[in-house]
Amino acid sequence: MSSLRFCFTSLTICSPRNLLAIPPQRINTFCCCAKPSRQNDFISEANTLQSSPPSASPKHSPLFGMDDTLVSYLCGKKKATDLAHMVWKHVVQKGDTVLDATCGNGFDTLAMLNLVADDSRKGYVYALDIQKDALDNTSILLEESLNPDERQLVKLVNICHSKMEEVVPRNALVRLVGFNLGYLPGGKKEIITRPETTFLALEAAERILMPGGLISIVVYVGHPGGREELEAVETFAARMPVENWICCKLRMVNRPCAPVPIFLFRR
Amino acid sequence: MSSLRFCFTSLTICSPRNLLAIPPQRINTFCCCAKPSRQNDFISEANTLQSSPPSASPKHSPLFGMDDTLVSYLCGKKKATDLAHMVWKHVVQKGDTVLDATCGNGFDTLAMLNLVADDSRKGYVYALDIQKDALDNTSILLEESLNPDERQLVKLVNICHSKMEEVVPRNALVRLVGFNLGYLPGGKKEIITRPETTFLALEAAERILMPGGLISIVVYVGHPGGREELEAVETFAARMPVENWICCKLRMVNRPCAPVPIFLFRR
Repeated sequence: MSSLRFCFTSLTICSPRNLLAIPPQRINTFCCCAKPSRQNDFISEANTLQSSPPSASPKHSPLFGMDDTLVSYLCGKKKATDLAHMVWKHVVQKGDTVLDATCGNGFDTLAMLNLVADDSRKGYVYALDIQKDALDNTSILLEESLNPDERQLVKLVNICHSKMEEVVPRNALVRLVGFNLGYLPGGKKEIITRPETTFLALEAAERILMPGGLISIVVYVGHPGGREELEAVETFAARMPVENWICCKLRMVNRPCAPVPIFLFRR
Repeated sequence: MSSLRFCFTSLTICSPRNLLAIPPQRINTFCCCAKPSRQNDFISEANTLQSSPPSASPKHSPLFGMDDTLVSYLCGKKKATDLAHMVWKHVVQKGDTVLDATCGNGFDTLAMLNLVADDSRKGYVYALDIQKDALDNTSILLEESLNPDERQLVKLVNICHSKMEEVVPRNALVRLVGFNLGYLPGGKKEIITRPETTFLALEAAERILMPGGLISIVVYVGHPGGREELEAVETFAARMPVENWICCKLRMVNRPCAPVPIFLFRR
């Protein structure tokens, strides 16, 4: 039985060669042991694996019904924008001033408004887009979703994201600047955000953001020009001083066209 | 007052030029309005920002005391290994079989054991390392931290991670394979995991992992050879079929030497 020595004392450091010396059918025979003991815990563990394997069906997966947004994102159950909204929730407070740099169809603007609005009416959302269609869509969504008091807390402005400083009051303390970079979903795919103006917009966001604030970016890369814009964002993020900024990118490694969330926290 | 038109109806799409037409001192004058109204909500919002700015000190930061591990990681308050352990918690169940491919000083092995161990004694951890010192350190940690019953649920094996299939029973359903790639903390920095064997180890992990399982990798890149190993892991992850695998990498963009967590979920 010397070849089974490593099975007897679990914390003994041992060579796997001994394990190889046990033919598989021998392990299967030993697996009939009903109750593990110090003398056969390896074998009984193998038995356990045979007699009551952990559940593997989707319904019984440990990921089923999980509500943690990050893990849901990591395992492909949530979108990049869902992840961004979850991160915003941890950063933004009621009464904050925030800015949606590319309001698109308005879903981010609405999510931001819900984070900052309360009875104090101090919260405020600036929502920008260079496309009139985007502002029209956002306006419709907000009209449908908000009460008149809440609608007073959103300002829609038809302007390039690089010019956000022309919109936000000079003394404003902005807790969040959000970007969705690419084209307007459902709109003309040839109208896209561009690396040059996006870089300028990020520089502007850096200037207006308060300490403890967040620049949140989701870069869509599946269209022509998308990768160049991602490179511009990465170049911007890579040069942020580590003493003041934490810059984290998430990438679906086996989905090169998946949107890329990037979070820049100002300490 | 036509230059103030955009202030009156918040959802009106407007040009920022009008805002620029208001001199800052004019805005400050308007800020004296005590109660916002439909006619001056932009002005009153600017006032709000001046009179009671959102808190910006670290003590009052919205990130202070936050317990969400992901956001804590994203904002630099948690380590890559903390993030990995959080993700494991969502995947691993009591009674599971898991494998620590590079046990190092044993902290991952201990964390895994705590996830799988319960009164059923079905849970099991295989912990491998090519360095005897690592296994000695892990053994000491486990002896200090576990009761005798729990210690029975860990098998330490002195072997290269690429040979994990020689250790795990052929019919085992493995829910988690964890890697910490680099050198043994506190050990000899010239003894490192290597791209070639790491690639083989990942292929082996792919073969033994059950559906719903996770290959969790933290790649240390600050030492010579670290970047090459990261490339090997990325190459491996990039070729995983999207229909069966979700492969996500997190990168601190402005800290090129920060450890890189990579999670490979099998659907």
